[in-house]
Amino acid sequence: MVIALLTDFGTKDYFVGAAKGIILSINENAQIIDITHEIPPQEIKSASFTLRACYKDFPKKTVFVAVVDPGVGSERRAILAETEDYYFIAPDNGLLSFVFNEEKNFFIFELTNEKFFKYPISRTFHGRDIFAPAAAHLSNGTKPNEFGKEIKDFVRFEESQPRKVSKKETEAEIIYVDRFGNLITNLTQKDLPESFTIEINGKKISKLQNFFAEAEKNELFMILGSAGFLEIASFQDSAINLLNIKVGQKFILKENS
Amino acid sequence: MVIALLTDFGTKDYFVGAAKGIILSINENAQIIDITHEIPPQEIKSASFTLRACYKDFPKKTVFVAVVDPGVGSERRAILAETEDYYFIAPDNGLLSFVFNEEKNFFIFELTNEKFFKYPISRTFHGRDIFAPAAAHLSNGTKPNEFGKEIKDFVRFEESQPRKVSKKETEAEIIYVDRFGNLITNLTQKDLPESFTIEINGKKISKLQNFFAEAEKNELFMILGSAGFLEIASFQDSAINLLNIKVGQKFILKENS
Amino acid sequence: MVIALLTDFGTKDYFVGAAKGIILSINENAQIIDITHEIPPQEIKSASFTLRACYKDFPKKTVFVAVVDPGVGSERRAILAETEDYYFIAPDNGLLSFVFNEEKNFFIFELTNEKFFKYPISRTFHGRDIFAPAAAHLSNGTKPNEFGKEIKDFVRFEESQPRKVSKKETEAEIIYVDRFGNLITNLTQKDLPESFTIEINGKKISKLQNFFAEAEKNELFMILGSAGFLEIASFQDSAINLLNIKVGQKFILKENS
Repeated sequence: MVIALLTDFGTKDYFVGAAKGIILSINENAQIIDITHEIPPQEIKSASFTLRACYKDFPKKTVFVAVVDPGVGSERRAILAETEDYYFIAPDNGLLSFVFNEEKNFFIFELTNEKFFKYPISRTFHGRDIFAPAAAHLSNGTKPNEFGKEIKDFVRFEESQPRKVSKKETEAEIIYVDRFGNLITNLTQKDLPESFTIEINGKKISKLQNFFAEAEKNELFMILGSAGFLEIASFQDSAINLLNIKVGQKFILKENS
Repeated sequence: MVIALLTDFGTKDYFVGAAKGIILSINENAQIIDITHEIPPQEIKSASFTLRACYKDFPKKTVFVAVVDPGVGSERRAILAETEDYYFIAPDNGLLSFVFNEEKNFFIFELTNEKFFKYPISRTFHGRDIFAPAAAHLSNGTKPNEFGKEIKDFVRFEESQPRKVSKKETEAEIIYVDRFGNLITNLTQKDLPESFTIEINGKKISKLQNFFAEAEKNELFMILGSAGFLEIASFQDSAINLLNIKVGQKFILKENS
Repeated sequence: MVIALLTDFGTKDYFVGAAKGIILSINENAQIIDITHEIPPQEIKSASFTLRACYKDFPKKTVFVAVVDPGVGSERRAILAETEDYYFIAPDNGLLSFVFNEEKNFFIFELTNEKFFKYPISRTFHGRDIFAPAAAHLSNGTKPNEFGKEIKDFVRFEESQPRKVSKKETEAEIIYVDRFGNLITNLTQKDLPESFTIEINGKKISKLQNFFAEAEKNELFMILGSAGFLEIASFQDSAINLLNIKVGQKFILKENS
């Protein structure tokens, strides 16, 4: 069974090795897949975006272990989410919000059964001591409700949604920046008028392209990206460098008259 | 069966996870191996060098998925190369050139059979939608010619070759810089006179070493590297820092009189 | 059988791919796990710390391949260590010291049997040509003493230990800095008085926390970390940035009166 890892552990330390070691100690046949360990430290929303953007590509019954956990050791709970096709193990801090927004039916269980923890439990590394062992036991056939009781009051944050601010204007937001410096917005196909311009940091962009190589070098353009969102990009350069922008930046989409 | 990935996707986003997820969705028993995902964005020649430097170390029948794809979404084709021992799946942009230079017999098929694509096909991420599924289907036993027709007019660039510029002088080139800052040249054993000096960026280097620890700290020297090429290196420092050089830099090798 | 890799190869070049390819060529069923390839180049002690911090989390009979090898190609030996539960393959340069300090019984064999090398053996990349093939053959059932003779004079360095400098003062040391900028000291639970203060780079720190989220933003505090050592940390910031410190920095722990 596939166990897919998405964390902010980084790849230079023992953290990833320890988590994988624990999984294999419990289920030596687990097929461990790294999604990424380079979520920026403590950026829960980046983790949520990244997980949402790829989890449906995995085979059914994949167990996702998603750990960005600034509250580790505090009273924040550890949870297991069961959806129609997948399992997710994560701290109860909203990390799974974007997954919940995609799923109609899901059940959340709190991880409380100490039988499935690794001892001694550290106060700072539940990735190794609680989340990884839970994933391994799940892949061995332990049922979700054996880990703890179902809960309904889990943490869930809303995704920022584009917002009409006038008849022809929509306020939207940059929600993610990828490795290439492409700026992912919260606009999807259904939010886009037939013809439009965006204004961001004093620059107007109205060229909508089908693919990268259509553009001139250093030209800013828009493109419907592979995660389903409108992106601001630049061919052979990085849009984030050209625009000097951060995640969370708001901007205006104007329908052309 | 082994599916080995070499891309410029980086490791911070959902790209690698998505490609792996798709492979496992089609063949859950595929053994996915990361060669690297840190080819500098869009540097096709670096990808070609890296793939050439390690593909023969893999078991026979390994499927390599090599994706550095600035032309994604345009008319550039997607190809499958079958050599005596291996399969390669890549965009038709020259990425496989250095492999072709190593192989006597190989056949190239264009990936056109839509049965093996993932839908909807994005315009920007064929790694997930075309290349990864092709690799997975191949590992499941699909024959190369089921993916599309054989083609002969694939893209192939020549490797830069050392060039005699006078009786005792050869012009050579830096073709790659590795993680340690070692400068890999296009000179191999057969290009080297018994005794020689190189001149690069105003510096002369004539010490040829067998291994790193022979050198003084910060001293520049030459060494026959593990990929089969002459390298310029420095022990406990980085040659690229000491020489301030880029890939593509030409230099002169002089036979000592 | 699990083969776990810990190296300073980095992840941008062909080095990791080549080592994995060789392993799979010898044992296609090996389960290769990346611990890390980002040990800082040639930092043997960082490698030793990282390996010690996670090896016990792996299943019994795991083969660890640990390669940080500034002396590659010189007379330094290659070794295989057999402990009660694990195998370790590494250059004989002290890299396994911290493991030896954890183990009561272990045997060291020099890797000399050329039958288990990959040819031609490069002078600069024994990770591919000696260490990786040894691990693969071991996972195939080759016995440790088939690789070479047992040796007793292997390289082993002592760990820096906290040192009493007066009745109420102990000199300790920063031994590692992790991805989050947390400073790991060589102090363990048994070294800590009931109440104490540390003085480091002109700053006094006396707050000892159970977990990260207890702290104020940018506040420096101490915490017992997941590797078993006292750490100096900062919530939502990096202690190394706040303190401007390097590995090896000494500091004083004072028992409070």
